[in-house]
Amino acid sequence: MVDFVDDVRSLKPQVRFNRARSVGRVHRQYAHFEQQLVLSSGAALSPFTIAYETYGQLNPDRTNAILICHALSGDAHVAGFHTDDPNEQPGWWDEAVGPGKMFDTDHFFVICSNVIGGCQGSTGPGSIAPDGKPYALRFPVVTVADMVQAQRYLIDSLGINKLFAVAGGSMGGMQALQWAVDYPERVKTVLFLASTPRSSAQNIAFNEIGRQAIYADPNWRHGDYYGHTPPAAGLAVARMVGHITYMSEFSLESKFGRQWQNINAPGYSFDAEFAVESYLQHQGEKFVKRFDANSYLYITKALDYFDISAGHESLAAALKGGKASFLVISFSSDWLYTADQARELVNALPADQVEYHHVTAFLGHDSFLLEVETMTQLVGGYLRNFRS
Amino acid sequence: MVDFVDDVRSLKPQVRFNRARSVGRVHRQYAHFEQQLVLSSGAALSPFTIAYETYGQLNPDRTNAILICHALSGDAHVAGFHTDDPNEQPGWWDEAVGPGKMFDTDHFFVICSNVIGGCQGSTGPGSIAPDGKPYALRFPVVTVADMVQAQRYLIDSLGINKLFAVAGGSMGGMQALQWAVDYPERVKTVLFLASTPRSSAQNIAFNEIGRQAIYADPNWRHGDYYGHTPPAAGLAVARMVGHITYMSEFSLESKFGRQWQNINAPGYSFDAEFAVESYLQHQGEKFVKRFDANSYLYITKALDYFDISAGHESLAAALKGGKASFLVISFSSDWLYTADQARELVNALPADQVEYHHVTAFLGHDSFLLEVETMTQLVGGYLRNFRS
Repeated sequence: MVDFVDDVRSLKPQVRFNRARSVGRVHRQYAHFEQQLVLSSGAALSPFTIAYETYGQLNPDRTNAILICHALSGDAHVAGFHTDDPNEQPGWWDEAVGPGKMFDTDHFFVICSNVIGGCQGSTGPGSIAPDGKPYALRFPVVTVADMVQAQRYLIDSLGINKLFAVAGGSMGGMQALQWAVDYPERVKTVLFLASTPRSSAQNIAFNEIGRQAIYADPNWRHGDYYGHTPPAAGLAVARMVGHITYMSEFSLESKFGRQWQNINAPGYSFDAEFAVESYLQHQGEKFVKRFDANSYLYITKALDYFDISAGHESLAAALKGGKASFLVISFSSDWLYTADQARELVNALPADQVEYHHVTAFLGHDSFLLEVETMTQLVGGYLRNFRS
Repeated sequence: MVDFVDDVRSLKPQVRFNRARSVGRVHRQYAHFEQQLVLSSGAALSPFTIAYETYGQLNPDRTNAILICHALSGDAHVAGFHTDDPNEQPGWWDEAVGPGKMFDTDHFFVICSNVIGGCQGSTGPGSIAPDGKPYALRFPVVTVADMVQAQRYLIDSLGINKLFAVAGGSMGGMQALQWAVDYPERVKTVLFLASTPRSSAQNIAFNEIGRQAIYADPNWRHGDYYGHTPPAAGLAVARMVGHITYMSEFSLESKFGRQWQNINAPGYSFDAEFAVESYLQHQGEKFVKRFDANSYLYITKALDYFDISAGHESLAAALKGGKASFLVISFSSDWLYTADQARELVNALPADQVEYHHVTAFLGHDSFLLEVETMTQLVGGYLRNFRS
C-alpha cells in the first residue's frame, strides 16, 4: 500500500516542510478596484478584486519586489501558514520563498496574487456579479494578458513602479513572459520555468478533455451550479487528466509501478485495485474540495489561447524592444511543456538577455517544484547576480 | 479548417484505401461454443460466441494460418468490405492484409476474431446472459489470457493445430505474446508490434481516467443502461483520453497546431474553437456510435492486468521453454508503449529467437498502422523468411 500523504514529494526527500525556515504566519489580503478591467475580448470587468499575499519587506525605494505567478490550480498562498495548527500544510511553494531560500525574503519583497478567473479570492466565475447573482458563465473569457493586466493594477496600488523579477512555473511562466511583453519598462528580470511561449496542439487537447469531462457532468448545468451540487465527478476526471501530465512516466513507475492497493492479488473487480488508480482518485477527490469547476474552464481556456507571438510576424518580433533579462529553465522529463518549447523562447531572445538551463530531472513537469536544490542554486544565484 | 475525413492517415499519403489490392467482399462469421470458458478469475463463461473473419485460403496441411489480434477498440474486420457500397471504409488494417501486402493472402490464411468482453459480435457485457437479460456488470472480468484461451477454441474449431504466426499491435501484441507463453507448441512466430510485456503505471493511469469518465456519466447506471440512453458523454471523454495517447505531439502539432476551426480569430467562448478540439470531439462522437461503454471498461481492465511475468520470478522465467520466434517492433515517437517497454521483452528472450527493429517514426503509437511501407518490408520480409 502506498501512502499518499506527501504525494509525489516523497520521491524527493529534500522537499520537506521546514517550519524553522518558513516565512511563518501570513494572511491573505484583498485589493478592490472600481476601475474597468478592459479584457482582450473587448469585454470589461468592473469592479474586480485581487487576492494576494506578501512575504518579506518592501525596501524604501521599492525596488526589491518579486511577483510570483501561480499555475493552473495554484493560488496566492505561496508560502507560510495561515494558522498555528501544527498539522497545517504550508503554501504551495514554501520551499522557494523564505529566509535564505531561492526567493530570499531577507532581501526581497515577494508578492503572489490569485489570477482573475480563479476561485481563491480574486474575481472569477464563482464571484457575485453586480446583479447580486454569481457570474457563472456570464463571466467573460479571460486571457493570460488579462490576468497580467489585473496584476498590474495590484502592483500600481502597492506603489511599485518596476518589479525586480516576475517569476513563475507553468502558467506562471506564461504570465511572467506576458509581463515582459506588455509592460517592458516595469520588469527587470523574468524567470520562466517549465513553461512555453505558446500552448501546443497537445496542450490544448489535454485541456479540452478536462473541459469535456466537466461539461459531461449533469451537475455542471451549463455553469449554473452555485447553490446546487457542484460537478465534482467531472472536475475530478479533469484533475486526473491534468495530474498525469504533471508527472513523468518515471515518477508514476517508481512511486507506484504495478503495486496493488489494499489487496495482494487481482480482485477481478472494477474497484481501484492498483495503487496508481487509488492515487489518481485521491487527487481528484482532494481537488474538488478546493477548486471551482468553472474556474477550471476559464483558466484552461486562457492557457489554450496563450501564444505570445500572436499578432506578430514571429516570436522574435513579439519580443523585440524588450529590456528584461530572462532566466529560462526546462526539465528533461517534462512532457507537458517540453524543452523544445522553452528553447523556442530562448532562440527568439537576444543572446545577451537570456540565460538558459536544461535540467536533467526525472519527475516530469512538477520538477520545477521538486528539484529544490538545483532551483535554489539557479534561481537564487540568478537573482543574487542582479541584486549586486 | 481541417478536414477530418481521413483522420491522421492524411499525414501519410501512402496510406490510402486501394480497392484494387483489397481482399474484396468479406463477411463476419460466428463460432458458438457450449463449453465452459474457465477464466483467470476462476469464474466460467458458458456458452460463448466468437465473431471472426478470414481472408485467403487455408492450405491442405493447415500450416499457413496467421491470427491477427486486435487492439482495444478494434474488431474482427481487419480488411476488405462488407458491402458493395463504394463509400464504405474497409477494415481497420486493410493496408496490411491482402494479395501482396505484409500479410499476403496469396500465401496465408488470415484470421481475426473479436475479443471476449468486446462488443463486435463476441460474447461481452452487452450480450444476453442465460437468464435472458444483458450481462452488464454481471459479465466476469476477463484477462488477455482469457481472450487468448477463447481464440484457442476458435483455432481448434477451424482444425488448425499450429499457427504460422500470431500478430498484433498494442493490445494485439499482448495477445500474441500470451499465445506464445500459454500455448508454446501451437505458435511458430510471434509478431509483437508497438506493445509491452506489462502495462506500466502510466498506462494504467490513462485507462483508469477513461473508466472514471464513464463511471461519472449518470447514464452509465452502474452498467445497467441497455435499453436506456447509453453513457455516451463519458465514453466520448474516455475515447478522447485514449486517442491522445495514440498520437505523438508531432502528429497533433503538424496536423492541427494552433489552427482555428470555422473561425479566424478567438471567439472568447467555450465552443470548440481550435481544430484539435473539434477533432477530439469528432473522435469521441464517432466512437460512441460503434462501441459499448461496458466493453471499454472490461477491455481496459484486461490491459491493466496484463503482465506476462506475473507469477514468475522474472520475465525471462515466464518466457523460458518457449519455442516461438519473435519479431518485435517499436516506434520512436510511441509514448504509450515505449521502446523501453518493448526492449524489456527483447532482452528477456533468447537472442536466437528474436529479431528487433526500432523504427524512427513521428506519428506516435498509431505508427504501427501508418508506417505501411516500413511495416510491409519488416513484417512481410519476416514472414517470407519463415515461409521458405
